[in-house]
This record gives sequence, structure tokens and C-alpha cells, in this order.
Amino acid sequence: MVHCDDVAVAGQQCTSPVLNFDKITDDYTKLIIAALPLLILGFIALVFVAINRNRLLKHKTGKDIGIPHLDYLAKKIKNGANSFIKTEYKFLVVYCFVWAILLLILFSINAISDVDDGTDGVRTMACFIVGATCSGLSGIIGMSVATDGNVRTTAACAIGTLNNGLQVAFTAGTAMGFGVVGLATCGLTVMIFAMKPNRDFQDSVQYLHAFGMGASSIALFARVAGGIYTKAADVGADLVGKVEAGIDEDDPHNPGVIADNVGDNVGDVCGMGSDLFESYTGSILGCTTLGAWKGIKYMTFPLWLEAAGMLGSLIGFFFVSTNQKGEGWNSNLSALMWALDKGMLVANIIFVSLGVVIVIVLFGYDDPEGWKALACVAIGLATGMLIGKGTEYFTSFDYGPVISIKDRARTGPATVIIQGFGVGMISTLWPALLLATAILACAALSGPYGVACADVGMLATLGMSLSTDAYGPVADNAGGLAEMASLGAEVRAKTDSLDALGNTTAAIGKGFAAGSAVLTSVSLLAAFKEEICHGKLSVCTEGGHIPDVNNLGLKVLRLYEVTDPIILAGVLLGAMLPYLFASLTMLSVSKTAAEMIDEIREQFRTLKNKKGETLMEVVQKIARGETVAPEDDIEPDSDRCVMISTRSSVKEMIAPGFCAVLSPLVIGFLVGAKGLMGLLVGTVGSAAMLAVMNGNAGGAWDNSKKLCEKLKIKKTEQGKACVVGDTVGDPFKDTSGPCLDILLKFMAMISLLMAPLIKDKDDWDNYYFGFIPMVIGIIIVVGLIQKKILTWKDPLEGKYNDSDTKTET
Amino acid sequence: MVHCDDVAVAGQQCTSPVLNFDKITDDYTKLIIAALPLLILGFIALVFVAINRNRLLKHKTGKDIGIPHLDYLAKKIKNGANSFIKTEYKFLVVYCFVWAILLLILFSINAISDVDDGTDGVRTMACFIVGATCSGLSGIIGMSVATDGNVRTTAACAIGTLNNGLQVAFTAGTAMGFGVVGLATCGLTVMIFAMKPNRDFQDSVQYLHAFGMGASSIALFARVAGGIYTKAADVGADLVGKVEAGIDEDDPHNPGVIADNVGDNVGDVCGMGSDLFESYTGSILGCTTLGAWKGIKYMTFPLWLEAAGMLGSLIGFFFVSTNQKGEGWNSNLSALMWALDKGMLVANIIFVSLGVVIVIVLFGYDDPEGWKALACVAIGLATGMLIGKGTEYFTSFDYGPVISIKDRARTGPATVIIQGFGVGMISTLWPALLLATAILACAALSGPYGVACADVGMLATLGMSLSTDAYGPVADNAGGLAEMASLGAEVRAKTDSLDALGNTTAAIGKGFAAGSAVLTSVSLLAAFKEEICHGKLSVCTEGGHIPDVNNLGLKVLRLYEVTDPIILAGVLLGAMLPYLFASLTMLSVSKTAAEMIDEIREQFRTLKNKKGETLMEVVQKIARGETVAPEDDIEPDSDRCVMISTRSSVKEMIAPGFCAVLSPLVIGFLVGAKGLMGLLVGTVGSAAMLAVMNGNAGGAWDNSKKLCEKLKIKKTEQGKACVVGDTVGDPFKDTSGPCLDILLKFMAMISLLMAPLIKDKDDWDNYYFGFIPMVIGIIIVVGLIQKKILTWKDPLEGKYNDSDTKTET
Repeated sequence: MVHCDDVAVAGQQCTSPVLNFDKITDDYTKLIIAALPLLILGFIALVFVAINRNRLLKHKTGKDIGIPHLDYLAKKIKNGANSFIKTEYKFLVVYCFVWAILLLILFSINAISDVDDGTDGVRTMACFIVGATCSGLSGIIGMSVATDGNVRTTAACAIGTLNNGLQVAFTAGTAMGFGVVGLATCGLTVMIFAMKPNRDFQDSVQYLHAFGMGASSIALFARVAGGIYTKAADVGADLVGKVEAGIDEDDPHNPGVIADNVGDNVGDVCGMGSDLFESYTGSILGCTTLGAWKGIKYMTFPLWLEAAGMLGSLIGFFFVSTNQKGEGWNSNLSALMWALDKGMLVANIIFVSLGVVIVIVLFGYDDPEGWKALACVAIGLATGMLIGKGTEYFTSFDYGPVISIKDRARTGPATVIIQGFGVGMISTLWPALLLATAILACAALSGPYGVACADVGMLATLGMSLSTDAYGPVADNAGGLAEMASLGAEVRAKTDSLDALGNTTAAIGKGFAAGSAVLTSVSLLAAFKEEICHGKLSVCTEGGHIPDVNNLGLKVLRLYEVTDPIILAGVLLGAMLPYLFASLTMLSVSKTAAEMIDEIREQFRTLKNKKGETLMEVVQKIARGETVAPEDDIEPDSDRCVMISTRSSVKEMIAPGFCAVLSPLVIGFLVGAKGLMGLLVGTVGSAAMLAVMNGNAGGAWDNSKKLCEKLKIKKTEQGKACVVGDTVGDPFKDTSGPCLDILLKFMAMISLLMAPLIKDKDDWDNYYFGFIPMVIGIIIVVGLIQKKILTWKDPLEGKYNDSDTKTET
Repeated sequence: MVHCDDVAVAGQQCTSPVLNFDKITDDYTKLIIAALPLLILGFIALVFVAINRNRLLKHKTGKDIGIPHLDYLAKKIKNGANSFIKTEYKFLVVYCFVWAILLLILFSINAISDVDDGTDGVRTMACFIVGATCSGLSGIIGMSVATDGNVRTTAACAIGTLNNGLQVAFTAGTAMGFGVVGLATCGLTVMIFAMKPNRDFQDSVQYLHAFGMGASSIALFARVAGGIYTKAADVGADLVGKVEAGIDEDDPHNPGVIADNVGDNVGDVCGMGSDLFESYTGSILGCTTLGAWKGIKYMTFPLWLEAAGMLGSLIGFFFVSTNQKGEGWNSNLSALMWALDKGMLVANIIFVSLGVVIVIVLFGYDDPEGWKALACVAIGLATGMLIGKGTEYFTSFDYGPVISIKDRARTGPATVIIQGFGVGMISTLWPALLLATAILACAALSGPYGVACADVGMLATLGMSLSTDAYGPVADNAGGLAEMASLGAEVRAKTDSLDALGNTTAAIGKGFAAGSAVLTSVSLLAAFKEEICHGKLSVCTEGGHIPDVNNLGLKVLRLYEVTDPIILAGVLLGAMLPYLFASLTMLSVSKTAAEMIDEIREQFRTLKNKKGETLMEVVQKIARGETVAPEDDIEPDSDRCVMISTRSSVKEMIAPGFCAVLSPLVIGFLVGAKGLMGLLVGTVGSAAMLAVMNGNAGGAWDNSKKLCEKLKIKKTEQGKACVVGDTVGDPFKDTSGPCLDILLKFMAMISLLMAPLIKDKDDWDNYYFGFIPMVIGIIIVVGLIQKKILTWKDPLEGKYNDSDTKTET
């Protein structure tokens, strides 16, 4: 055999792949080979979800174990979640409808493809609708199963072992995990087939950006509304219940407690699911777009890898189990963690092994390109895991950072906050170093395509890792139900163990989400450039190579030069956007929580039993240890709290949502591609760091409070200072932090979709089009101010004077 | 006369400037015309400082008005400040010596100029030393005069009107304001003359980057150490004094109160002075570097403008006065503000009028280039003022944002923090929009040179605006002295009025510092590119123009393409650096404050009078209204607190300082110019937003507490919640926020200086050089960990157990 390196130097084809695409002449056959495995596995994943759902529904509920009250409470949570979804999706349907029409018109006028047969508008619209629908569906399915799973997990813990509980909760979590990857891959592959007729591969992939855009649109609003919902309910319920009335978390007398549990489902299941749906879709799109320009085997590579990852995840599922006993959150966390890690490990081993096979089949064992791409995949996988480890260090109470927060609590809440911020900010060092190293290494190996491969590597086993994540809120809800139904301490100990495990996976999942968002955005940016550079009239220079422009007859050499003032202005605006976005979500939480507090206080004061005692009096009787006869007990009106959360969160998502949607449109049309590129670059850096900081600071505060509980100093001044930190951390880690991940990807996705409209244009060429989104933005802002949604006014204004607050000099 | 436009189209010289540089053949004459006016005015400014110092010293001190105790206290503050300066400058002298040797070697080997006569190393070193010395001197002069001014301000308030006090305090402030601009311009112009022999203008300006680098080095460490000092002392003194012992701020029994007052001088006078020394130098350097490549008149333009600004400031000084009476911080702030604004207004009117004259002289009235550049100057001036107005909106208690924080305090400290963050984050919108608009507009008018002109416009009247800023801490100290010496309520009312005014100017100054830092960095970035692009072997493409590379025989076309993965990796690291840097400073404050708290508590417990009463008991007696005989009173050992602050802040500045110094060196040498460019871009966006957020959130928290005081609800739960916000805000607004401005400029400056060393190199070309700073960094980190300076351990560890803290269930 000729030595490959020698031949490569001579510029000939030297590889010996098992599958040689060059020998296949029919494009459609190529496409079937490329995409069919993924479609099949996606379908299997969906079947798996259906089977798991059926298995789950067969598990015992409250009435089966003699506690029908459990079912009553679970029903309330389910109804609350459903009513939120209904309210939110009403808005989203209208929103998507407008976008669909807009895309139809825009791309019918400005054809994407050179083959201008008038179908580009319809193609783009179809992809958008399918993407949005799949993303929406995956949220609904995941949440529906999760709300079936919570009560069954409680029941399993009540009558069985910890492992029984874990199995039930994890089975419920898989609905989200595999639902997301199944729907994403089925949707994408079907649309790849549908887009191919009359188009080359590059063009047919471009339509799929609309699929990503559809998914992003749903994700953006679901994440924002879910995040606001969950934390407004949590903060509101805690501040009145725990702090003012002195009752436990999840005490059924607290009117906000059902809303809090609903929040876990709409925020942590539905919101996170659609977020990662987007990351997953983005990773496939980024890599296939870049691959399509390099050749069919580069396009096939990520599709097959995703299929391999999904197969690994499906097998890994069966390895999740534990023989630990539940001892509250004091139990052996690392042993419990191993229960889930086993599954992840199996999934990853299968994935990498199949990766080797894929390289040999597609590239041949003697082609360094294939191995380089696989190395990038491995780098991505390792980066994801290492980011998780770093997150663990900064947020677990076993290590210095969280302990230092607890220590500073000796001098009060102010030093807790300062220290927590310091910890959150310094924690950005690790992921930034890892991501930068990964990007540099992959770029050195395979250029931008390598970075996209790393993203695929990080996300390929998402089915498994997302199931692990989605398991958390199910366990959290199960614990809440156990508390609300006043089940025994040993049941509560088991659900607490599951909950503690869920908190750990949630923290790791957040670091992972931020990391994958960065890689996805970087890939999408590269894809964006690729699109812009393949204009009809323009071309880009690459590295040191200057294309012979005169011979090609092209108009202009388009450069995105990083010190260009237009780029820098874009970078500044881009760096600001995450702050604006995060502040809008955070102020919304603050405002909605205040409304919630008002409602809960009102109920504590006005709800009375037959004896004329108020809810507050009854609660305080119980707190003093006095017995209250069942007929004297008062059930709070939790539906009103659910209603307030739902209404407010959907109202409040409009400002941050449209801020993310309109900013790239304004800059892109007004200033042009250069300004948009700067905007994206600024956003990627700023949003990633702010997201990591928010997530880790929040996690660290949370666990410093848990550390106080563990040390039994929760009721001291020191413990109370940590509780302040925990409350501050809530919106950081569960609202603004996660929302920033989606901002990152959404902006890249919408830019990618816009690319065909702004390429071949000079700076400021189309500036008048920029006024359209700008005017829409102004109208929305004025409307929101009119409706008193954007306001500095306190929702409690007029109900309490400043002097009404407890005086305690 | 031929119509200018027609001729311009024909490509001929058509302008009719009064001064035509083309007619002057001697380069030295050109240089004298360009730089002499600035040198003369700089000299006048320094004379003005000397005169003002003499006038100040003639004012009455404590002993002249019969309260010698005032002088005793003032002496303590002065000594504390001096001992800090001594400790800090010992370190800085060594640090600068090492750098000077390094620069001598580096630039002797790698000549900057094509005229390689072996003097480049010496030239660079000389500029560096002069820059560092001038920056250091300006800090020392400013602080020395400020510590003379505080007691004289108190005395003036005690025996005179509010206007007398204002005059004295403002006169002291001018030492900093005019000292900075005088030393900067004298130093710079002298070095311009010294660098010219045997060099063309472009080269001679390049050496001056070492001047900027010298200034930056001093500024970086002065700002960081000063920031840590001031807030550690403040937080420590407040938490024990106000919160634990229940005594007033500035009560002389608090051992930390002198250190707190010293902190105002080392942080807000010395630190801020060297910070703005750097901005000012940077604005001149950025604009002259870019101007030197465009032609001598473009280089002269900023120099003359700065001279005009200085003249305006000198005249403006005489317009500062008020006829308001002092009524504490409740007095008419806007009328008081007008006292200072009058001066600013006069200075700006003179500046702009002279700008018109300059354009006519240099460019001629019919050359649009001149008017465009002047328009950029005006844009810069307007942007600076508008940023200030925005800061006022977000941090003044007259407007919604601060009021909303006070409102959320009804539900405790957690919601105060959340709301304050929201306010801080959303406040980035305004400066980002302004700066982006200014950059876009100036770039459209005159390209990168226009952006540099805007920076010059923003900073030209710095003499006046910095005097306004430096006046604040003098007034603050004066108030502290009045309190410590137990002067009457009417004196305290006057000093409080002056202090309130100082707080407002400080907040506006912070927004201004951040804005100018961004513009300076953007100009320096453009200058950096200019340097890189004029390599011996390489050339850059500009816009759509491709230079005929083959004819020029150049090696490679160097592109800083924004979607290049190397650039993006740099952006990520760059976006992370501000977080790392801010967290190191914030954790230092947290740690040093804890040491301070320990010392103060110790003194309260162990210091005893002859009767055997502890300091705490004496203090509590006084608080209860009991009289304590003078012989039973106890004077705390404030020197120990001063010593702790000094020692700790100088120790703690090492980690953040070297992090800023080494990062660009590592990336620049390891990865190359492309990575460094990405790093800078990432840092600019991220640091600017974080700085604005920190500054405004801190200011808003501070004023929400003041609002509670005004509403007389400070002692309620609501008021206490606001106090927590205020304490958290302290390091935000006075440590990490201001430090970030300097980071921004420092990184750009060090890169600019490195540019000659890394140009003409490909990516990774010199990677082994990168290991040198990397190893130094690792050694420093290990050393700091060994010395327990970088640690998560609590300084109070072992002295208090968790269970020791007050239990109050």
C-alpha cells in the first residue's frame, strides 16, 4: 500500500474509507446514507419515551398506597403547569404565526438559493414551523410525564427503597431527555430529506437554519417565562412563609407552595428542555452547515455521531440504579451520584467506540482528517465533563469556596453577598480557560469545523445527560408532595436524598448548558461567516490566501476586521445586551415575587375558619405545637397564587424576549453584517461569563445555606445571613443565568437565518430596513410602559407605607 | 477662490489653513509648533498647583480656631496616608525597575524603528521611567495637598460660610486635577522632543507608548491597592462600629475610623488620580499615534486641543463658588451642584471655541476634514456629559431606580440585593448605546482617528472635572474630622452638604471614567492595529482595498478576522479576565475587612481605662447618654488598624495586578497578535459593562440607604435592609468597578507597547516566549498560596467558632 502521507503531499486522493461517497452518483442515495441512521434512532428514542411513559403510569399513586391526598396535591400541580403552558403557548402560537408569514414573504422575495424556483419562502416557513412545533412538543411531553412522575416517586419512596424512588424519578426524567433528542433528530432529518429536491447540499442545509430559529423562538420564551415563574413563586413563598410566618418550606398552609412546585416543572423541566433542544439542534446545524461546504462526508460525520450518541444513551439508561439507603441530604452523595454516573459512563464509552468505527467507515483509517475530527469530538466531550467538575468545586459545600461564604456569614448578610459574588466571578476562570483551550486546539486540528465537532461531542449523549437533569425537578416535587401530605420522616429522608442528588446534577447541568451554548454559538458564528462569504457578489479572504478577485468578477472583498470601529461598536452593544436581558428577567422576578408576597400575606390575614381564626393564627398554633382539629384547619387558595405566577410570568417575558429578537434585527439591517458580527461576538463573551457567574454564585449561596443546615447553625444569625444569600441566589441561578445561555444561541441563530438577507450589502446599505424592527421595539416598550409592566413602581405601592414595616430598633 | 470640493475631487491640496505645515521644511520646527503650546500650558498648570497649595496652607487649621485636636486627628490621617504611599511605592519602585531593564533589553534586541542605531532600548526605557515617575508624582502631590486640605475645610466650615468651606476643599482638589494634567502634558511633550532626533514622527510617537505603559503600571497598582484599602477599612469599621457597637460613623472611639479616612485619600484621591492620568495620557497617545500616520496636522490637532482644554479649565476654576447655606445632605443639591457646574460650563465653552480657532488655523475653514474631526471632539464631549446624566438617573434618590430599591427593602435585604443588581445591570444600556453611537458616528466621520478625537474631547477639560472629583474625598474627610472632634451640629451640617455634593460628583465621575476608558481603549486598539499593520514584512488590507502584495514583496496579508476561532478564543478569555480581576479585588476586600473586624473587636474587648472598663463598655455608656469623664475615656489604637489596612492592601494588590500584566503577555507571545487582539476586544466589552454595572449598582444601594435616612426610616427593618445593600455596594462601586476601568486601558497599553515585538509573526510562531510569563505567573500564584494570601481560609478562623456567633432564634 502506498503510504498515505506521501500521496497526500502529491495532492491525490489517498484515503481508503469503507464507504466512498465519490462512487455514489445519486445525491438522494448519499442523503439517505447520511441521515437515515439518525432518523431511525430518533424514532426509537420516541418509542422509548412512549414505553417509559406507560411503565411510569403503571406505578402506584397516592390512592394505591392509601394516601389519596397525594393525588389531590399532584393534580393541583399538574393543573397549574397545564394552565401555564396553555397561557404561554397561546402567545407563542401567535408569535410563531407572525414569524412564519414574515419568513414566507422575506425569503420569497430574497431567494436563498441560486435555483430561484419560488419555493424558498415556503421551504423556510415549513422548517420554521416544524422546528417550533418539535421544540414545543418536547416541552409539553416532558412536563406532562414529569408531573405524572412526581407523585409516583413519592409513592415509591413511601412503600419501597431509595432505588425504587430513583428508578421512577429517572424514568420520568427520560421523557424529557429522550423526547428532546428524538423530536430534534426526527424533525431535522425529515426536513433534510424534504429540502433536498432541486437543491445542492449547501442550500438545503441553509433552510434548516429556520428549523433552528423555530426551536430557538420557543426556547427563548419558554426559558424566560419559566425562569421568572419558578423563582417568583419560590422567593415569594419563602419570604412570607419561612421568614415572616416561620413555617417550613412546602408547608401546605402556605398559599404559594403549589405555585412553587409548579415552577419546578415549568422552569426546570419545560424551560430547560427547550433550551437544550436548541443547543442540540444548533450543534447539528452548525456542524452540518460547515461540513456541507467541505464535502458530503464531513456533513455525514456529525449526523452519524449523533446517532451513535443516542444509541449509547439508550443503552446507558439501563445502568442507572443504586443500592444506597436514603438518609436525607446527609447521605453519601458521591455513592448516589455514581448511580447516575454509571449510565453516563456507559453512554460515553459506547459513543466514542462507535466514533472510531464511523471515522474508519467515512474517512478510512489512514486519513488524518477523520482522526483529527474525532479528536475534536473527544475534546468537546472532555471539556463538557471538566466544566462540570469545576462547577462542582465552586458550588459544593465540600470545598473552600462555599465554606468561605459560610465563614463570612459571621459578619452578616453583606459579607455573604460580597463573598458569593467573588466566588461566582472567579469561577468563570475555569470554563473560560477550558473553552478557549478547546477552541484553540480544535481550530488547530480542523479549523472552524473542528470547533463544531467539539460541540457535537459535548452534546451527542444529551439523551442521557438531560434525563439526569430532568430527574432533579421530579425528585424535588416528590419531596414537596411528601412534605405537603405530611408523610413520615423516613419517606422524607428518601425524597430528600433524591432531591440533594438532583441539586448536584442541576449545578453540573448548568455549567454544561453554558459551555455547550458557547461552543454552539462559536460554530454558528463560523457558519454565519460561511453563509456571508458565499454571496453571489462577494467573497472572503481566508488566512493568508487572497482569492483572485478580478478573475472571479466579484464586487468586494468583505472583511470583518476586529479593530474596525463598527465591529467594536457592535461588540460594546453585544456585551451590554446580556446585562439588559438579565436585568429585565431579574427585575421581573423581583416584581412578580412582590405581587406573590402581597397575595400570600393577604390570604394569611383574611382567610378564616368557622371559629374566626385567621390562617396566620392557625399556622402559628401549629408552629407552637398545639393541635388544630381538622375542621378548624384552613386550606389556602393556592389557585390564586398559581394564577398570579402564570399571568405575571407570561406578561414579563415579553420585554426580555423581544429585546433578544429585535436587537440583532435592528443592528443587522441598520448597520449591516459587520455590526451584527460585532454584536454577536460581544454577546458570546459577555453572556457566557455572566451566565457562569450567575449560575455558580447562586449555587454557592444555595449550598452555603445547606452547609449551615448540616452544621445545625441554621437558626443563628450566621445561618440567617446565609439564607439571605440563598434567596438572592435563586433568580441568579434559575432565572437570569439560564436565560443568558439561550440569549447566546438565539442571537447566533437569528443572525444565521438573516445572513442571506444582508450578505452582498455594504455598511449602512439597507439602513431604512433597520427602522422597522426599531419602531416595533419602540411600540412594544411604550405599550409595556402604558400597561405598567415596565415600571419602577412597586406592586405593593399604596398597600403598605414605609412606616408599616415592622420596626425593631 | 476655487471651490474646495471641486479641487478635492481632483486630488489636489485645496485647503487654506492659516498655518501650512507643508511650507515648513524643518521637522523640529514642526514639532515645536505642534507641542510647545501644550508644554507651556502644562507648566502653567503646575505653577497653578504650587500657588494653590500655598494659598491653601495659609488657611486656618485647628489650632488657629482653638481646636488643636482637629490637627492631631488630621495629622494621623496624613501619617497613615504617607505610610501607605511609602509601603506601596517601595514595591512599585522595584517593579518599575524590573520593567525598565526588561524594556531596555527587549527593545535593544528588537529595534522599533527602521533606523536601528541601537538607541531604541534606551529611548523606550527613558519614556517608561518618565511616565511612571510623573504618574507617581501626581498621586503623591494630590494626596499630600488633599490631606492638608481636609482639616482646613473643617476649620473654614467652623468659622465661615458654606462657600468658604467649598472654596478651601475645591482648592485642595485642584492640586490633583491640575497636577495630573500638568505632569502628564509636561512629561509627554518633553519626551516627544527628546524622542524626535533621528526619527520620523511615526517612530517617535511609538516610544511614547512606553510613557503610557509607565503611567499605566503605577495606575494599575495604585488603583487596586487604594481600592482594597479604602473599602476594607470602611466595611470593617462600619460592621463593628455601626452594626455591632451601635455607634455613629466616624465616632472617634472606633479604632477603624482613622483608617477609613485614610482610605478616602489613598483610594479616591491617589488611586483615581493615577487612573485618570492614564486615561488622559492614553487619549493623547491614541490620537497622536493615529494622527502621525495621517500627517503632521492630524498629530498637532489633539495636542492643541488638550492645550485649549487646559486653558479653559484654568479659567473655569475661578467660576466655582456658591451662595448656598449648608443644611446637611438635605440642602438644595442642584443649587450646590451649580457651583461646580458653572466652572465646568465655562471650561467647556472656552474649549470648544478654541477648537473652532484650531480647526481654522490647522485645516482652514474650507476643509471638511477639520470640521469633521471637531465634530468628533464635540461628540466625545457630549457623550461624556450624557453618560454622567444617565449615571445620575440610576443612582440619585430622586428617580425611580433608587426608590424601587428602597421599596423592595420592605421584604428584607435579599430583595434589596436582587433589585440593586437589576438596576445596576440595566444601567449599562445607556452608556453602551451612547458609546456605540459615538463610535459609529465618529467612525463614519473620520474613521478610527475620529474615535480618538472623541476621546480627546471627553478628556480635554479633565483639569476641571478631576478637580471636581478630587474635591469629594477632601469634603468627606472634613466631615469625618468634624465628627471625630465632636464639633457642633451647624458645622457638621455644612460639611455634610459638601459631602453630599461630593457623592454626586463621585458617581458622575465614575460613569465618566468608564466611558473614557472605553474610548481610550478603542483608540489604543486602532493604534495597535496601525502598529501591527506597518510591519517590515506584512501589511493589512483596509476596507475593500487590496494592496498589490506581490509588487510590494510582502510576506503575508495579516487579517484579524472576527469569526476566526483564535480571535474568538481570545474574546472568551478576554471576557473572563474582568471577572477574574474584579473577583480577586472583591475577595481581597472581604478578607482584609475580616482582619480589620477582628482587630476592632479585639480592641473593643481588651482596651481598658483605669477603672477597668473596656472600650466597648465606655462606648455603650456614651450611647446610653451617660457622661464619661475625660480621664475615663479611652482612645483606641487607630495606628494598628492603619497598619493592617496598609499591609493587607499592598499584599492583596499583587494577585490582581500581575493577572492584568501577565495575561496579555502570555497570550501575545504564546498565540500571537491575533489571540491578543481577541483578548483585548473581549476585555473591552466585558470590563466596560461590568465596571458600569458595579459602579451604578453600588451608587444606587448607597443612595437607597440615604433615602431611608431622609425618610427617617433608617432604624426600621426596611432601613436595615438598605444598610446591607449599602455595605455590599461599597466594594462594588469603589474597588472592583474603578479597578476595571484601569484593566481596560492597561491591557490596551501593554499590547500597544508589545506590538513591535509580535508583528511580522504568524500564529503560534513564538509560542516558547509565552512560557516565560506563564511560568512567572505560576510562580507568583504558588508563592501567594504559600504565603496564605490566595486562600479560601477565613482570617477569623480559629478565633471564632461558628457557634460563637450571636444566636437569636
